[in-house]
Amino acid sequence: MAQEKKKVEDITSMDEDFAHWYTDIVRKAELADYSSVKGCIVYEPYGYAIWENIQKDMDERFKKLGVQNVYMPMLLPEGLLQKEKDHIDGFAPECAVVTQGGGEELSEKLYVRPTSEVLFCEHYQKIIHSYRDLPKLYNQWCSVMRWEKTTRPFLRGAEFLWQEGHTMHETAEEAEEFTLKMLRVYEDVYRETLAIPPVVGRKTEKEKFAGAEATYTLEPMMHNGVALQGGTTHYFGDSFAKAFDISFTGRDNGLHTPFQTSWGMSTRLIGAVIMVHGDNNGLVLPPRIAPIQVVIVPIAQHKPGVLDKANELYRQLSESFRVKLDDSDNSPGWKFAQYEMQGVPLRIEIGPKDIEQGQCMAVRRDTGEKCPVQLSDLKAFVGGCLEKIHDSMYQKALENLHSKTFTASNYEEFLDIAKNKPGFIKAMWCGDPACEDKIKEDTGGVKSRCIPFEEEHISDVCACCGKPAKHMVYWGRQY
Amino acid sequence: MAQEKKKVEDITSMDEDFAHWYTDIVRKAELADYSSVKGCIVYEPYGYAIWENIQKDMDERFKKLGVQNVYMPMLLPEGLLQKEKDHIDGFAPECAVVTQGGGEELSEKLYVRPTSEVLFCEHYQKIIHSYRDLPKLYNQWCSVMRWEKTTRPFLRGAEFLWQEGHTMHETAEEAEEFTLKMLRVYEDVYRETLAIPPVVGRKTEKEKFAGAEATYTLEPMMHNGVALQGGTTHYFGDSFAKAFDISFTGRDNGLHTPFQTSWGMSTRLIGAVIMVHGDNNGLVLPPRIAPIQVVIVPIAQHKPGVLDKANELYRQLSESFRVKLDDSDNSPGWKFAQYEMQGVPLRIEIGPKDIEQGQCMAVRRDTGEKCPVQLSDLKAFVGGCLEKIHDSMYQKALENLHSKTFTASNYEEFLDIAKNKPGFIKAMWCGDPACEDKIKEDTGGVKSRCIPFEEEHISDVCACCGKPAKHMVYWGRQY
Repeated sequence: MAQEKKKVEDITSMDEDFAHWYTDIVRKAELADYSSVKGCIVYEPYGYAIWENIQKDMDERFKKLGVQNVYMPMLLPEGLLQKEKDHIDGFAPECAVVTQGGGEELSEKLYVRPTSEVLFCEHYQKIIHSYRDLPKLYNQWCSVMRWEKTTRPFLRGAEFLWQEGHTMHETAEEAEEFTLKMLRVYEDVYRETLAIPPVVGRKTEKEKFAGAEATYTLEPMMHNGVALQGGTTHYFGDSFAKAFDISFTGRDNGLHTPFQTSWGMSTRLIGAVIMVHGDNNGLVLPPRIAPIQVVIVPIAQHKPGVLDKANELYRQLSESFRVKLDDSDNSPGWKFAQYEMQGVPLRIEIGPKDIEQGQCMAVRRDTGEKCPVQLSDLKAFVGGCLEKIHDSMYQKALENLHSKTFTASNYEEFLDIAKNKPGFIKAMWCGDPACEDKIKEDTGGVKSRCIPFEEEHISDVCACCGKPAKHMVYWGRQY
Repeated sequence: MAQEKKKVEDITSMDEDFAHWYTDIVRKAELADYSSVKGCIVYEPYGYAIWENIQKDMDERFKKLGVQNVYMPMLLPEGLLQKEKDHIDGFAPECAVVTQGGGEELSEKLYVRPTSEVLFCEHYQKIIHSYRDLPKLYNQWCSVMRWEKTTRPFLRGAEFLWQEGHTMHETAEEAEEFTLKMLRVYEDVYRETLAIPPVVGRKTEKEKFAGAEATYTLEPMMHNGVALQGGTTHYFGDSFAKAFDISFTGRDNGLHTPFQTSWGMSTRLIGAVIMVHGDNNGLVLPPRIAPIQVVIVPIAQHKPGVLDKANELYRQLSESFRVKLDDSDNSPGWKFAQYEMQGVPLRIEIGPKDIEQGQCMAVRRDTGEKCPVQLSDLKAFVGGCLEKIHDSMYQKALENLHSKTFTASNYEEFLDIAKNKPGFIKAMWCGDPACEDKIKEDTGGVKSRCIPFEEEHISDVCACCGKPAKHMVYWGRQY
């Protein structure tokens, strides 16, 4: 059992070294492994199963809006990428480039897609002719590649898995509306599926996506007060459409240019789940995405009747939940620690004494609460308990967000908070990117997160330069 | 309506030009479009939805066997690929190669994965220590890239979508057994899901996978008598495991090398479906993968009550089937042709006269049969009819396979069939690759398809060289 115990004892405390705690969980809960390609990870079965559950949830939400899945090539010819100037300026420097194929030098460089706006535009140019062809609401699930210098599993990698939606609309209003509609869908995924309350708003000009007119963002706060840019939706206006000669005959029989959006969320969501909900015993998974929602651990399983009863409960619960029965010869204590490490929301213990009393013990991963449950009520109990776990995980994350969000009325306060209190800072801003640069430099990394939809009035002037304020902005460090 | 009609009229007859007929269907049924990257296609919504249905079916079958999904990096360092000599010899010449990343020349070339044996081995080397860690049954859904000279949508492309399974086992017997077990799963997918009877067997030494000890194959016959290599499973022995230093402590406490398999099927299956079942009116989709299983076409839809009734049928059928109601202002005739082109298995027509009589008309795509159905029986009728369509599509494909499979006892017969009768040739073979080469040259492309599990005895000698025969082999041209 020496090797077994090691698994659990080895987790670094999150208060001691948050970064180390994070990678400990990634490795020891068997979510991902490193590969010999720098910045590329292996998604192990448990980590990939979480992603599959997130995918399924998101895909259903997309399809309800009429979004259709497609698949575009993984390579972009340089000429195509060059059609939109801001876009190539933003992405080309961080691309992996194919220069040889079939044993020969290629006449044109091919970029491994960092994102696929240009391919969707090339295709839309061919298939959009009339207002009857609009809107086009396409999405693809794929991997993309960005040659990042510093990488961390799920958070920042040379390759990551994501979905990217690209839509075309008849009017600017409709496209803008869809950009916000998808932002709300993403927000629902955070709240209803991941049990995470994100801060939501618009990116500043400086922080918006290369080529976009407006970028909206979801920024969950990690347990240590650091932000994660965890999903964005973009409104492009008609700049890409013009660059790619996309036009359609309108209701007035005139020629028009359509308006475009794109939106993406990635496996970074798994990183958010780890860092928002995890604790010093390991992962804590929201029930709706947990590959195992309930683990059944038999106690004294060699005694007559125990395994039979455990199997009976397994069959019963499997009808409605994702359940694992661990009847291996590891000790119950090891199993407890193992499934805590893996963040299984609910543990059911069943032993000879429980069976005598017609009950079992239920233990919540998020709170550690333990209570006896009558076997006749078990199924209803589990359903209700998983809902409760979701709700209280959400509440806990919300309290962390609130307790680590501070208000700065002037630059002295701002710098003091930035130095001493990890978290978000709400402060007024004049709208000048120069102030964003100054803040980033003075604080060693604090950036504007977003302009929320409902801005508070903190003061009349920019917390940085003292000029008249245009917006209230959330500021913070980021992964 | 001019543009509408064009869609249907433009299909080339399959008897006139099979290749042109094929690409007409791909384009006009909106399965795929070309992109500006040579050999890479855009999977359009309808084509991708077929793939999603195939994926779902296969993924469920895999999971029942205990297979777990993972995701490996899309790039392979050259050094890793070189570890198994046959493997790099087989694949390196047809790879796309990344030589630049993040604006700099890379010190080591990275190959876009043509297949991922080496990455799975690298990972398995880290996680397999004891016989308790075995078997490992991993699979991934991804895209791979092979720099093919001649490409055709779904059949042969620079990039295609597939699944690749890679498993490690304690003993050679177990690995060999799993290789065959997965072959049977694939065969079930063909028969039960795609309504296609494949010829199944073992590849000759010459035709087996680079690095494998044995390759098994599924070879469906297209309508024109040409074969498609439509799925393979490989037994690797322990050669990769040795090359990658993978070992485990066995039950005897000694150090052992595990035994490996891999297996893959791709979007080529969509090509098989088109070419096995399609006809001169377009695609004919097997009901179990059809994105739309039933289309409801209202007749005289402006008349009172028609759309209400059509909507009622839609709601009723949607509970159990994938249904579309087309209430657009296109004519019924256009709609008939359009959904025939798209291969929708069953059409329901409902008009004022039908409603009066409490019935609707049901039209089968595969046979064109039309019959009235009482509305009260509709749901049960549709369920039964979709099953019947599946079965009769399978029978029709089986008859095509049988009627185009010929037997050759000597070389004269062989060459005569190869020249004049498109299809498969059953003939004896001595086991010498030289005869395979000679046959390929003399016939302009006929290759060994496979050695079936149940060989017939046609004669005692090789049909090509006259030396003693070792096996009966299926021969044929391929896509």
